[in-house]
Amino acid sequence: MEEKIIMAHGSGGKLTSELIREVFSEAYGNDTLSEMEDAAVVKVSEKIAYTTDSFVVRPLQYPGGDIGRLAVCGTVNDLCVRGAVPKYLSAGFIIEEGLELGLLKSIAKSMAETAAEAGVRIVTGDTKVIEGNGGLYINTSGIGIYPENRRVPGTKNIEEGDAVIVTGTLGDHHASILSERLESVGKIASDTAPLCEVTEKLMNDESITVHAMRDITRGGLATVLSEMAESSGCEIEIKEGKLPVNKTVKAFAGMLGLDVLYMGTEGKMVVILPKAQAERALGIIRSCKYGENAVVIGEVIKKSGGEDSANAGRLLLETSLGAKRVLTQMVGEGLPRIC
Amino acid sequence: MEEKIIMAHGSGGKLTSELIREVFSEAYGNDTLSEMEDAAVVKVSEKIAYTTDSFVVRPLQYPGGDIGRLAVCGTVNDLCVRGAVPKYLSAGFIIEEGLELGLLKSIAKSMAETAAEAGVRIVTGDTKVIEGNGGLYINTSGIGIYPENRRVPGTKNIEEGDAVIVTGTLGDHHASILSERLESVGKIASDTAPLCEVTEKLMNDESITVHAMRDITRGGLATVLSEMAESSGCEIEIKEGKLPVNKTVKAFAGMLGLDVLYMGTEGKMVVILPKAQAERALGIIRSCKYGENAVVIGEVIKKSGGEDSANAGRLLLETSLGAKRVLTQMVGEGLPRIC
Repeated sequence: MEEKIIMAHGSGGKLTSELIREVFSEAYGNDTLSEMEDAAVVKVSEKIAYTTDSFVVRPLQYPGGDIGRLAVCGTVNDLCVRGAVPKYLSAGFIIEEGLELGLLKSIAKSMAETAAEAGVRIVTGDTKVIEGNGGLYINTSGIGIYPENRRVPGTKNIEEGDAVIVTGTLGDHHASILSERLESVGKIASDTAPLCEVTEKLMNDESITVHAMRDITRGGLATVLSEMAESSGCEIEIKEGKLPVNKTVKAFAGMLGLDVLYMGTEGKMVVILPKAQAERALGIIRSCKYGENAVVIGEVIKKSGGEDSANAGRLLLETSLGAKRVLTQMVGEGLPRIC
Repeated sequence: MEEKIIMAHGSGGKLTSELIREVFSEAYGNDTLSEMEDAAVVKVSEKIAYTTDSFVVRPLQYPGGDIGRLAVCGTVNDLCVRGAVPKYLSAGFIIEEGLELGLLKSIAKSMAETAAEAGVRIVTGDTKVIEGNGGLYINTSGIGIYPENRRVPGTKNIEEGDAVIVTGTLGDHHASILSERLESVGKIASDTAPLCEVTEKLMNDESITVHAMRDITRGGLATVLSEMAESSGCEIEIKEGKLPVNKTVKAFAGMLGLDVLYMGTEGKMVVILPKAQAERALGIIRSCKYGENAVVIGEVIKKSGGEDSANAGRLLLETSLGAKRVLTQMVGEGLPRIC
């Protein structure tokens, strides 16, 4: 087999079959894939969660992860923040000609390992080849199932007085990609991780009622909380002094004039639930592999209601000096191709 | 809103939200999408079919279709040839900066119309922006459900003596893309179409037992039948004289020295079933919008069994002159970026 991807690998003929067999079926060790039928047939619950995400991160490998691990975690996390148990993934590869086959194999292996860690199976896939210069884009979609009687968390459930928890430090992925691009000495590791251990432990605890969860991703904490405030019609307030930030990331962001609130992270999420349950939830989250730095960072101040809704949908930050300012979604451009 | 896509449309912030709202939610008219949650929650059967496909066709619009219609049909067809009823799609857009917003809207509209025609809903999506020159890649994944007691067709069910039906003319999509690229006078229309009317009518007819179905796509009839022969362990023979080819496509292919057997088509499939049911099946297929030119093109000669398996997995063509030759999967490159 050629050592680099050529256009003919995308022909849909012999070389495409070889590529699927030698790279993907081997990495995923998967009966469903090796059947080589047009669609996988799988078992699910009556109600499922279904999502998709494309990944265009550059570089393809970075400290703490690669596009393959990211493509699995991104979709797994979108399923588990909706309270579902992630089960099946699809993987669509758009490969630029010239990609080193060894690199592709290593990324497929990383996907397989991350899928195993998250308890999901990659059951169907597709490969296309385009002109270019050795780049790679991966789309994953995912299906999560719901155990019987499980409530679906969503922003519409958010209530006045709820606590806002973040499950760990902010900005690590953003700083990692940037430190890799800048070739800075002392690379920063990305936090790319599957969050299903955290969400499953929370959803399975009978004394906890999760109102809403969101993984943070490319827009950063401020963007995701702004969206949650807007779609729930609630005013949310967070405290600058409470935000968990890794020391190196803080120094790196300070040096470059970046605002950690808008820096992307790929292994953290926001959990909103009744204040009385916050301590117990923190204990559960901190017991998980990817939750040890979880903290309460704020609360839901007001739920909109008729006349009194001027401030509904607003996100407020109380700064370390005690001033308050309104945060909005990221405007303009963040870090291109961060995920 | 800007009239062309800029990198900031991929930030995950305000411009991304606007893009989703103004282009995609509007085109799909979809509650699930406009909820703006991380995953859609939908109802399904216990057993589902699940597939994915990426589309990189160039040009983005061509006679008889566009990348949007293709992205819906490709995935719908992968589900329905497995005997499932296509229900839900995801759509992931990777957009090169510079893409005209008007063109993107028109493609989203085409996807919505094709989805309506095929009876599926686009329930979840994602948008990323990369550097480039106004190009567009679309990934769709899809979920199909199984009515109770429905058998799943698959190549392992193929039997000696089965008839091989093709549901219409070959090579139309290939000729269309090529005629568009060559700017030839008198463009050829692509056959891009959803095949679920055909598959549902066949699957719902109690006197018909479909053994296997495959949509033809980029590798052409020879590639898809070779794969079916190989994975079923059967020898399959087709007759050159029976192959349905549109007159214009035949002339066009002849002029360019192309072999219709390896030309891509995006609205036709192969159906394999017991010979005694072939006439009835033809009647059903021909009554469908995209099946009027269906014909029997060959049969399954031999199923492999122990010692006698030298020719198992072979695809034979009986030429118009009566000679026989072995056909293989497409080797090397077909038409790059045909789908």
